[in-house]
Amino acid sequence: MTDNPRIITACVLIIGNEILSGRTQDANLAFLAQGLNDAGIRLREARVIPDDRTAIVSTVNEMRSLVDYVFTTGGIGPTHDDITAQCVADAFEVALIVHPEAKRLLETHYPPGQLNEARLRMAMVPEGAVLLPNPISRAPGFQIGNVFVLPGVPRIMQGIFEQLKHRLVGGEKVLSRSVSCPLSEGALAKDLGELQEHYPDLEIGSYPYFRRGDFGVTLVLRGTDPQRLAAATDELKSLIRALGGEPQEGLSEE
Amino acid sequence: MTDNPRIITACVLIIGNEILSGRTQDANLAFLAQGLNDAGIRLREARVIPDDRTAIVSTVNEMRSLVDYVFTTGGIGPTHDDITAQCVADAFEVALIVHPEAKRLLETHYPPGQLNEARLRMAMVPEGAVLLPNPISRAPGFQIGNVFVLPGVPRIMQGIFEQLKHRLVGGEKVLSRSVSCPLSEGALAKDLGELQEHYPDLEIGSYPYFRRGDFGVTLVLRGTDPQRLAAATDELKSLIRALGGEPQEGLSEE
Repeated sequence: MTDNPRIITACVLIIGNEILSGRTQDANLAFLAQGLNDAGIRLREARVIPDDRTAIVSTVNEMRSLVDYVFTTGGIGPTHDDITAQCVADAFEVALIVHPEAKRLLETHYPPGQLNEARLRMAMVPEGAVLLPNPISRAPGFQIGNVFVLPGVPRIMQGIFEQLKHRLVGGEKVLSRSVSCPLSEGALAKDLGELQEHYPDLEIGSYPYFRRGDFGVTLVLRGTDPQRLAAATDELKSLIRALGGEPQEGLSEE
Repeated sequence: MTDNPRIITACVLIIGNEILSGRTQDANLAFLAQGLNDAGIRLREARVIPDDRTAIVSTVNEMRSLVDYVFTTGGIGPTHDDITAQCVADAFEVALIVHPEAKRLLETHYPPGQLNEARLRMAMVPEGAVLLPNPISRAPGFQIGNVFVLPGVPRIMQGIFEQLKHRLVGGEKVLSRSVSCPLSEGALAKDLGELQEHYPDLEIGSYPYFRRGDFGVTLVLRGTDPQRLAAATDELKSLIRALGGEPQEGLSEE
């Protein structure tokens, strides 16, 4: 048992009209959620907000005071609808400046004469921001305070996140075990509720699945103490068997 | 030209630890976003929040005062972690009661003796709520005030939404046109920004794509006036051709 270690938290802000119109299916939240979980950081909330100055500034300011880390995706390209960098500068009440190293990166990438004014926008960051290296394309993300500003294109976002994640300081890691069985939630619910009461330090989730004519439920147990997790998993398997089901561990379906 | 029609807005609340842990990729937001867009309702924001009473109650109350419609997904099954109905009742400061019609639906579904206490939880709704018929399985969703409470399992959520959507009152519908071309954003950005300035009533989004060795950009124009949309689309195609690209309409890639 550790003595009440600090819990480290994060929030993800997905910035983009295309997600709210239904045109684009977001692919960044699940990636960041898993990456943060692996780093011992708990994702408290995610928000999808429009490319709107007021919404971005107020949400960035609300979130950076509530959680340890804020990650934004989207809105840092060269076009008129890429307003995230300016909005983050406004949220921190600093100027938006051309970052010399980002400008140099772009200059080495584009042939002479092609680094136009629009492309140079990708070198602009809030004053005091640190660049986040981009191993895929040229334009970097940036960090200011506890806010990490990433692009929306999944492959590029992932490349930048992989490079920055070693710098994140996490807390105790949340471990999970999962058990699936072909019982209905309604048959399991009473025993499962009692199991949760006996293990208030764990979080037990119940997720029914219906797939290929098959149905059942996946139970996910999460917590920081592997021994408590193992004990609860054993009890869960016993109660499933007592109800006539065959538990399958690690088989996680939705 | 219509005389300033009212804009109808919505917010989606995705309730579930499994989304925030990265275990499950949300599949409901894109469906609801498209369905609301089709109904002339503008999705202003989406939030993913945990199975946590304080978070659910405060977010439901914040959102229902800000937008015309709130849709929640998740947390209305029979197990201990299904707390959405109770939280929505708390948000509206009403009791959670057994709805007679929901109970009757469950009674006709389960064989005698199998409608246990846990399953009966699926018949519990905030006092004053209206049931939302579920064409897929037995447990209904419900509506109270401007809040629509739906399950998290995508197939069931979609079935309930399809049955309720004719009751939603939308405003002017947002139409869209999209044009793709094999140019880079940086080459297009200046002209695109000028086009946006000439059409302040439209929203012009720029989305680069990289796929199968191919790259380019999809431009999406959105607005309520089809003639303005058509005019801007024609101008956009001309400026793409002037830059040496071949515009392809309707070809929307991400």
